[in-house]
Amino acid sequence: MKNIILASSNPHKLEEIQNVLSPIKINTLLEIGFIDEIEETANTFEGNALIKCETIYQLYKKPVISDDSGLLVHYLKDAPGVYSSRYAGQNATDQMNYEKLLNNLNDIADRRAKFVTVICYYQSPRNIAYFKGELTGSIAEQPEGYNGFGYDPIFIPEGFNQTLGQLSSEIKNRLSHRARALEKFNLVF
Amino acid sequence: MKNIILASSNPHKLEEIQNVLSPIKINTLLEIGFIDEIEETANTFEGNALIKCETIYQLYKKPVISDDSGLLVHYLKDAPGVYSSRYAGQNATDQMNYEKLLNNLNDIADRRAKFVTVICYYQSPRNIAYFKGELTGSIAEQPEGYNGFGYDPIFIPEGFNQTLGQLSSEIKNRLSHRARALEKFNLVF
Repeated sequence: MKNIILASSNPHKLEEIQNVLSPIKINTLLEIGFIDEIEETANTFEGNALIKCETIYQLYKKPVISDDSGLLVHYLKDAPGVYSSRYAGQNATDQMNYEKLLNNLNDIADRRAKFVTVICYYQSPRNIAYFKGELTGSIAEQPEGYNGFGYDPIFIPEGFNQTLGQLSSEIKNRLSHRARALEKFNLVF
Repeated sequence: MKNIILASSNPHKLEEIQNVLSPIKINTLLEIGFIDEIEETANTFEGNALIKCETIYQLYKKPVISDDSGLLVHYLKDAPGVYSSRYAGQNATDQMNYEKLLNNLNDIADRRAKFVTVICYYQSPRNIAYFKGELTGSIAEQPEGYNGFGYDPIFIPEGFNQTLGQLSSEIKNRLSHRARALEKFNLVF
């Protein structure tokens, strides 16, 4: 992302320039003062994405976007799926999660996997939309690279010979499951 | 502009989502803690836009964007031009400025005018670019409408029969001199 300082103290100019250059302004939970954890108790990506949006919408009554993502490994019958971020336990680190996965695939030839993201856009209780993005690929033999987060160091996208952890954020942001879901959102809004 | 809360406290997700939905993040002078006035002493839009960028870049060493705009009235030999915001004096309000202009055009049939914006993008002292946008139109007989700012209530864009002050911000943000300059910037960055 490009950070640019606007050298103007004119609020009208700020609004017009923000509008054209950057029509969507994303407010973070920190900015709005929400510091709790949201429990993700559903067993689908859509369900968890909805829980996150609903929790925030109920409090702030403003449009909310949320993302629930996970890694589906074919040999493991689509595990870890919605449990990806807590595969190795409730407070597992990224590294603990992907090491458990590598262990479970030890000596297994079938390394097919895909990343899934579901974006939920919650404008109001009567106007909720979902956007899904997928990225197919395979699980590497060992972690490589330090970019990204989660399972990125062990996931090799189809057509590449490097993990998401090795690819630049520019490339990841063009091809990733999250980018694909967000592009669908962009087409509609 | 659309404000959306992102229901995630994951900084990686925030970055990826911000990047795809809103690739440019605009930092205001208030956000970076700059509260002084910048004196615009040049006699061209390019010159004043450059002064604003240079002042901020020297202090913060980060990419800066600035805007210098003005109204050029044909009968008044392109006045007020770069002096548009202080046409009726150093601390003139928008209303004082456009009333002076209306007085100077009293009973004058030639009401041709154009708005000009020059956007300066200052990435570093060796990488400075300018983008110009124009909007032709005419000066109304009297102020109309409360949208926008500056001379908007007395400027009728070509092809319209209402002032910029009467047109919605959605329409203004599609046709204005500032939007046209920013779109050129968007094409390059």
